[in-house]
Amino acid sequence: MNASATGDDKVAIVGTGLVGSGWAIVFARAGYKVALYDTAPGNADKSLAWIAERLRDLEAAGLIEAPDAIQARLSIAPSLSDALNDALYVQESVLERVEVKTTLMSEIDKVIGPRTLVGSSSSGLGASLYTEHVTCRERCLVAHPLNPPYLAPIVELVPAPWTTQETMQAVRALMLRVGQSPVEMTREIEGFILNRLQGVLLMEAWRLVEAGLATAQDVDKTISEGLGLRWAFMGPFETIDLNASGGVADYARRLGGLYHNIASATKEHRPWDETLIAKVEAQRRTVLPADQLAARAAWRDRRLMALAKHKRDMDLAEKECSNSNIK
Amino acid sequence: MNASATGDDKVAIVGTGLVGSGWAIVFARAGYKVALYDTAPGNADKSLAWIAERLRDLEAAGLIEAPDAIQARLSIAPSLSDALNDALYVQESVLERVEVKTTLMSEIDKVIGPRTLVGSSSSGLGASLYTEHVTCRERCLVAHPLNPPYLAPIVELVPAPWTTQETMQAVRALMLRVGQSPVEMTREIEGFILNRLQGVLLMEAWRLVEAGLATAQDVDKTISEGLGLRWAFMGPFETIDLNASGGVADYARRLGGLYHNIASATKEHRPWDETLIAKVEAQRRTVLPADQLAARAAWRDRRLMALAKHKRDMDLAEKECSNSNIK
Repeated sequence: MNASATGDDKVAIVGTGLVGSGWAIVFARAGYKVALYDTAPGNADKSLAWIAERLRDLEAAGLIEAPDAIQARLSIAPSLSDALNDALYVQESVLERVEVKTTLMSEIDKVIGPRTLVGSSSSGLGASLYTEHVTCRERCLVAHPLNPPYLAPIVELVPAPWTTQETMQAVRALMLRVGQSPVEMTREIEGFILNRLQGVLLMEAWRLVEAGLATAQDVDKTISEGLGLRWAFMGPFETIDLNASGGVADYARRLGGLYHNIASATKEHRPWDETLIAKVEAQRRTVLPADQLAARAAWRDRRLMALAKHKRDMDLAEKECSNSNIK
Repeated sequence: MNASATGDDKVAIVGTGLVGSGWAIVFARAGYKVALYDTAPGNADKSLAWIAERLRDLEAAGLIEAPDAIQARLSIAPSLSDALNDALYVQESVLERVEVKTTLMSEIDKVIGPRTLVGSSSSGLGASLYTEHVTCRERCLVAHPLNPPYLAPIVELVPAPWTTQETMQAVRALMLRVGQSPVEMTREIEGFILNRLQGVLLMEAWRLVEAGLATAQDVDKTISEGLGLRWAFMGPFETIDLNASGGVADYARRLGGLYHNIASATKEHRPWDETLIAKVEAQRRTVLPADQLAARAAWRDRRLMALAKHKRDMDLAEKECSNSNIK
């Protein structure tokens, strides 16, 4: 992970909540100096303390060494101008509201250097909604992570109509340098890739529970003890490419009809109403009482760390196996 | 895994292709005697040889001990009647065509004992389509696995309208005894749970590629380096339950609108046509040439085995950690 950063390179984190703090770990872990800035007094201090705990967790899980050296690369910037000074990249992670991001972008535009790039952690709002008015807009894009970014490598790069190819390429290269897995969209669409895929799966999951066909717990098991096992290391296209002797085209011709039937039979998409929400909530609370939500989230993070370590070890073992000619 | 089978218990596998052979491993691994029957001459012999190889793989991965003892529980039955004689359960895994399954069920009906239950490996056809005419129909259901069942624990139990609750409960108990994770539907629906969830995700994945918004490879990464990491040990409901401070209801009120928009914007579901299939096929073949499909499938099986071992070790470590009060 400590690959190719020069040590002089600096990244600014603007907005130091859960997402911004997670990003800070990603960049500092890779050797970058990271300046933290948040408008709310005390937030950046809380972020530093939170990061110190996470670094200890990551060390205990065997995912990093020398947490102190990583922590030493982090500092709090007294102003937005100080945060951005000499930064090659700004990861903006403020509240997901167009007016908040629009105002911030105006502020950034006043102090940004001529080569600094700006990525937004927005999970669904395209950069066109809050960067049209700024002079640096060609250097702005969405760089949407999955939480927490220091355990899930994916980052969606989504250009606004005015984002240049140079910006896309430079942020892509940066994300690769810090150990993330960038994917690129050619243009904006609501929900990008990640939340569109999650969204259609959730809509169907809720529909099955609403229709009384299965419990939320059994729908969950179908993923966690079934489909999710393959998806932990292969995407849906590779999965079906390997599930028919003639590859993906063979699979599509055999099973396209079934999936088309299923999708076509559910043309009506009603919003989740309070009755349905209450039903799902009640089912979840029998499995996990509300007072155990935080403990279970900590369990999830331990499992994610262990899975990250498992995948890294598997990838390393494959690389070392020089006889293998499989990609 | 060698938990509570008595050794006198016997299961019949009818249809010894990939799916039936995978099931044979599940039952023999748990201590059951397994009778293999296939109408095509030589198929059951091939199955035995294939199973022997898989048992060696599983032993090498640390997932089983004593493969010889497991293999010794398998035998080839010379007739359907011999296969079913004294069997407590039949796992039917023949070709997924209504007429093939209908004919076989008539044959089974002639020789089945009074207490034997019949589960079909059907991945999408409800048992009502091929069991209405048989006298044993109350003891028939769908028991649909993910391939390979000895690595993916999920099994969907789907009743026909005439399947009794006793049948559902008994097969559920059997599946738990052999280490599988049964989920239950209350009634039939095309695609059951698993292929409906996979189907809606695939339809969206293909749509993104068709619209030129992203490549198949980048869609795949969004799962394998993102969403799939959580889904390897948590379902979609648990995921969102832990992603808002107030649990699933809080999450649904915040993000229900976004997902409803996404789903509603894609009301039209066109079948995958040959132009689109050719586009996806071309993208996959640049990532994985056709002559490497088999090698990559072997890689997938190694990764699935390693992941199964990883999950088992994590579960064991959690059980041993007696301080934990998290479910």
